[in-house]
Amino acid sequence: MEENFNHTPLIRLKQIGRIRTPYNRKAPYQPIDEEGVFYLELFPEYVEGLESIETFKYIYVIFFMDRAKPAELIVEPPWAEGKKVGVFASRSPSRPNPIGLSVVRLLKIEDNRVYISAIDALDGTPLLDIKPYVKHLDSKEDANLGWAGDVRDKDHLILHLKGIPHDF
Amino acid sequence: MEENFNHTPLIRLKQIGRIRTPYNRKAPYQPIDEEGVFYLELFPEYVEGLESIETFKYIYVIFFMDRAKPAELIVEPPWAEGKKVGVFASRSPSRPNPIGLSVVRLLKIEDNRVYISAIDALDGTPLLDIKPYVKHLDSKEDANLGWAGDVRDKDHLILHLKGIPHDF
Repeated sequence: MEENFNHTPLIRLKQIGRIRTPYNRKAPYQPIDEEGVFYLELFPEYVEGLESIETFKYIYVIFFMDRAKPAELIVEPPWAEGKKVGVFASRSPSRPNPIGLSVVRLLKIEDNRVYISAIDALDGTPLLDIKPYVKHLDSKEDANLGWAGDVRDKDHLILHLKGIPHDF
Repeated sequence: MEENFNHTPLIRLKQIGRIRTPYNRKAPYQPIDEEGVFYLELFPEYVEGLESIETFKYIYVIFFMDRAKPAELIVEPPWAEGKKVGVFASRSPSRPNPIGLSVVRLLKIEDNRVYISAIDALDGTPLLDIKPYVKHLDSKEDANLGWAGDVRDKDHLILHLKGIPHDF
């Protein structure tokens, strides 16, 4: 770690592969189950680290949103009826650290490719980490929708959260 | 991004605060609900980004495990009866990018402090991001335990997954 102008340490990470998706310019706001092929392409030196991952139904994909717009502290989610919230209460990509996080279904492994269900990332996005999504650790059945639960048309919102585009 | 020796881009992130926990030398393998105070201490310039976060029951905490041992591709989880698995099929901190991820309960906000339930991080760990844990996005009720479901004493294992130390 080194110091930056604000005397907060800079942290260096490395790309371990890339995410391949059909999205070239615009990704949906959240993963959407649509046609198309989605996979994680690991650099060959990391393939050994996939051992036994195929035993998990879901995985976390952690990525670096290299084409995100500059960070904002207050954001206006596109489907939130004009509501403004803090960036840490949102999944906006315009964050102080543009780290993306998605839970996806693991479909199959072929060599250095981990095929997954749809993910809200642009094609070529740098991959940082893969972690198993473990039932007793990560699945919180009493979780809520936070401020998004107050939006007038909640059913409509849930569709958006699931990634259905606005024109749907 | 710049190139490293292997021609894979290096990615720079910044610390946005630190995690305060009672753990100085050893953190439990997973978050454990025990006595003690746990909070995220945001650097003041990011506090505005917390707006409305208090409406969420759970949040994701993303952190940089600055004291993790060097990366390994094959790991032997301490409670897994000698089983060896790939690092991406584990939550080991010794990963190519030592990014930590935990789902925690959000308890209260006081100024630049976000009080949370227990987290498996050492005191002073650099904070990278906070995201809301959103029911319809992140809670997968059909998730499984992966390879860990094959361990002989599964109930015992689930205790470990929940962070109960081995001497318990």
